[in-house]
Amino acid sequence: MRAEILSCGTELLLGHISDTNATFLAQSLSSLGIDLYYVSQVGDNLGRIVETLRRAWDRSELIIMTGGLGPTEDDLTREAISALLGETMQVDPRLEEELRAAFAARHAYMPESNVKQATLIPSASALPNPQGTAPGWFVEKDGHIIVAMPGVPREMYRMWEKEAAPRLVGQNGAGSIFTRLFRVSGLGESTVEEELGELLHSDNPTVATYAKSDAVDVRVTAKADARQKAVEMVERVEAQVRRVLGTHIFGTDKDTLQSVIGKYLFERRQSLAVMESLTGGLLASTITDHPGSSAYFVGGIVSYSSDIKVQMGVPREVAEQYGVVSPETARAMASSVRELFHADYGIGVTGVAGPEMQEGKPVGTVYIALAGPQGIVDGRGPGWRGSREDQKRFATLAALNLLRLHLESLR
Amino acid sequence: MRAEILSCGTELLLGHISDTNATFLAQSLSSLGIDLYYVSQVGDNLGRIVETLRRAWDRSELIIMTGGLGPTEDDLTREAISALLGETMQVDPRLEEELRAAFAARHAYMPESNVKQATLIPSASALPNPQGTAPGWFVEKDGHIIVAMPGVPREMYRMWEKEAAPRLVGQNGAGSIFTRLFRVSGLGESTVEEELGELLHSDNPTVATYAKSDAVDVRVTAKADARQKAVEMVERVEAQVRRVLGTHIFGTDKDTLQSVIGKYLFERRQSLAVMESLTGGLLASTITDHPGSSAYFVGGIVSYSSDIKVQMGVPREVAEQYGVVSPETARAMASSVRELFHADYGIGVTGVAGPEMQEGKPVGTVYIALAGPQGIVDGRGPGWRGSREDQKRFATLAALNLLRLHLESLR
Repeated sequence: MRAEILSCGTELLLGHISDTNATFLAQSLSSLGIDLYYVSQVGDNLGRIVETLRRAWDRSELIIMTGGLGPTEDDLTREAISALLGETMQVDPRLEEELRAAFAARHAYMPESNVKQATLIPSASALPNPQGTAPGWFVEKDGHIIVAMPGVPREMYRMWEKEAAPRLVGQNGAGSIFTRLFRVSGLGESTVEEELGELLHSDNPTVATYAKSDAVDVRVTAKADARQKAVEMVERVEAQVRRVLGTHIFGTDKDTLQSVIGKYLFERRQSLAVMESLTGGLLASTITDHPGSSAYFVGGIVSYSSDIKVQMGVPREVAEQYGVVSPETARAMASSVRELFHADYGIGVTGVAGPEMQEGKPVGTVYIALAGPQGIVDGRGPGWRGSREDQKRFATLAALNLLRLHLESLR
Repeated sequence: MRAEILSCGTELLLGHISDTNATFLAQSLSSLGIDLYYVSQVGDNLGRIVETLRRAWDRSELIIMTGGLGPTEDDLTREAISALLGETMQVDPRLEEELRAAFAARHAYMPESNVKQATLIPSASALPNPQGTAPGWFVEKDGHIIVAMPGVPREMYRMWEKEAAPRLVGQNGAGSIFTRLFRVSGLGESTVEEELGELLHSDNPTVATYAKSDAVDVRVTAKADARQKAVEMVERVEAQVRRVLGTHIFGTDKDTLQSVIGKYLFERRQSLAVMESLTGGLLASTITDHPGSSAYFVGGIVSYSSDIKVQMGVPREVAEQYGVVSPETARAMASSVRELFHADYGIGVTGVAGPEMQEGKPVGTVYIALAGPQGIVDGRGPGWRGSREDQKRFATLAALNLLRLHLESLR
């Protein structure tokens, strides 16, 4: 099946937003084994939308549209599809009832013009949208399919995954798709790809990697005629993926390093404190991005000046003898903050973020240490030199991963 | 002039990257008053690129292409333009010399296939690319212009701003464009738009707003036949923009709140320390994103538990009497960290990040205080309720803006 994406919205053509909806859909189509040949963005202009839609109809079997389903005169996706197919929009009584109920539930007045959100054409069925007022359209005619969904990403993601994609796969509702993400820390994307090898070329399930700012994601997607079968197919590949990537996989789907660490610490009723210089607060900030972190995260010290390190318990001799950027100082930072804050675990991070060298050590040098009931564990930086922000980010991820691996080793 | 963007690269159709190049160009075209009607993404396939390019040629006077200028067989932009126009690519001796010199300077071997990066067609002139090996093409024929640029954003941005856009504006090199961004803190985008009023409808210079994660940007762009004239046109509008937005403007172009604060503190040879709970380290991390922050940022305390606040100097009575989330505790945090770390300024931030209420105070409550040689200044949170990350981000910006306004008031 050849697919094509058409995104509608003048805001795209003014550069107010990037078309991340297309990126999301492109990833999903790829994992479903559906070829995507063209993506277009068009403004809220009926003539240009119909023109682009007609061309898409001529060359692709599947057209996925986002945007233009709102209630205003600028929202023209329904009108464009109707014009293309020569069909007339009619208010669907059931959809109208649902629409009025949605407004009533919010005690909001519904302008009569909004009723166009409750229309259909004979070739279209409605895709429910519990998160908004505009249902999508699933149009089937002459061997072509048009899927029209709202432009609001949250509404679109849900509608695509729960409503549209399953219909595409199973021919009218019988099919099922199941996707699981495996989140990898401590390896670069190219290494992950090398390790996965032939798995990347499999057809169903498909396996693909994506480099995210906090991990490398391995996405496994299976299509089958029943959900349970798709899940089992993913789980068979999961076993292979886990065999090659082992403990580098720290979680699945929405897991983050900080959420996984949070879960372990919470289960063990243990607490954490950090002392950081290189990362300048980013380590603490990342830990506290996890809701509920106040249950185990006691606090942190950003010891940007050497005096603060000493004031907070790092022996002056250590900093002077080995240097502020040294494994010994990282260890002293971890132990000191653990003691000072009466925490079960302490992490210390020191290094050279740049732009200049420090103590003769180059930008990119990072030392990490973890102090806990089991003693001290040394960690290493990513051995990678990038921008200042990247430097901070990679050192933060390395520190979190050190703790994660340690906590896992105790399970 | 009607413009159209064509982005080439299979990675776009697999969802590996979003087409942020198109977003950048859309913003720039809008500020130049050039109408953009269509944006398309196509994979690295000669037939589909030529097909899309031909359609663009038929309906638009200006076609801006990005990507596909590399040295490999998958890089097909030059080939597609040549096919469209029926012209033959030929190696340009001067470009070849430059290409070989670039490889020699890096002591790198140049595969002979790379020589295609030194080709031109009769209708094309080269757009220099000092940041990469691939020059762009500026093609003029039959009243149409094609601008072909590399897909690497850094190379493309420079080539567009320094080489391509000025040629477009001035008809062959005589024109000039000048853009200045005004960075606004403490106002939402819609308020900024209201304040700017009629200015947003001006033609040359154009004025537009963009909501960024750390500020609202007001972008002023003038076109003229000479650079000095364009600069003067921007400066006349600048006076009007500054009159309506006043001290809400904290900087221009690449300034950030942290860089502006850094500049002020560095000039005054003063130092800064922070104690934060709600923001969980993000305040310190944002301050240390600025290179050179070690000159004035002493350090920070992330006092996530109440005990740490007391241990670090907040009087227990204050926390108990007024609550940990209170203006009084914020003030005590600011004063304590200022004293403890011997800094000229101390900032305290406390509040409720969520997901749950705290001390009967709702999610979104934020108290900020600044302690300095001039005494204590109270700040407020954004009075805005969002996700946990947004909460942290907005409180961080509010704290930085409080210090920025205070330091400016002393100038």
